[in-house]
Amino acid sequence: MLQFIGVVEKANERGVSKVRIFDEFREGLEGLDTFSHIIILYWFHLRATEERRRVLKVIPMGRAGNPKVGVFTSRSPSRPTSIGLCVVELVKLEGNILSVKGLDAFEGAPIIDIKPYLPRIDAFPDAVVPQWARHGP
Amino acid sequence: MLQFIGVVEKANERGVSKVRIFDEFREGLEGLDTFSHIIILYWFHLRATEERRRVLKVIPMGRAGNPKVGVFTSRSPSRPTSIGLCVVELVKLEGNILSVKGLDAFEGAPIIDIKPYLPRIDAFPDAVVPQWARHGP
Repeated sequence: MLQFIGVVEKANERGVSKVRIFDEFREGLEGLDTFSHIIILYWFHLRATEERRRVLKVIPMGRAGNPKVGVFTSRSPSRPTSIGLCVVELVKLEGNILSVKGLDAFEGAPIIDIKPYLPRIDAFPDAVVPQWARHGP
Repeated sequence: MLQFIGVVEKANERGVSKVRIFDEFREGLEGLDTFSHIIILYWFHLRATEERRRVLKVIPMGRAGNPKVGVFTSRSPSRPTSIGLCVVELVKLEGNILSVKGLDAFEGAPIIDIKPYLPRIDAFPDAVVPQWARHGP
């Protein structure tokens, strides 16, 4: 049911990652660079094991002191469906190669979907989070 | 590879939808209501046909006058991987039932994943979009 449409070719070289979209899906990129930000869904290929997918409680970011919470209360890569989600800045689109800033996927991660980021429905700067989630890893 | 973890039980009754998470995944919800907003990934079950999944160019929101763009430049439900994404307000969590505001999924849509919304990495209120994407359907 899942269709891989591309792959992370280079991960995080001075903050920029390169994503290659497979030729057969290239047409689907038309006009993407009229958006400054996009949402990338990718496959946690290193965590998509039977065992990791049974995990229901996690310590977010593995940080001692953080409370153990449900897996859906975290962005942990160990989860029932091994899909990662990241909002990134689209720096450049050249043919079927996207240069993006801020992608947290590893090299080799299969890309599942790309969607344009629409601040009207996606940006909630005042959304409330618990204390432990206020800071990055 | 995809795991359905729940289902949209009631869609959009006066703006509020009810999502039921299957009992076996209920533990994964612990602490979710310490967040005001969550990201829901769901399956476009009415569009997940072979034909719809081959679509690479669309007219966004089907609105005459909008330019034809690549499917990844749109949020169209007809796409290679039939996954929808919606940021919603979590109104209430009671056992394994979530009441959420703003979900655009239909009744019966399988839920694939739930993630907490983190404005630090998810909110880009100044993201640039083309003219046609500035207004809702």
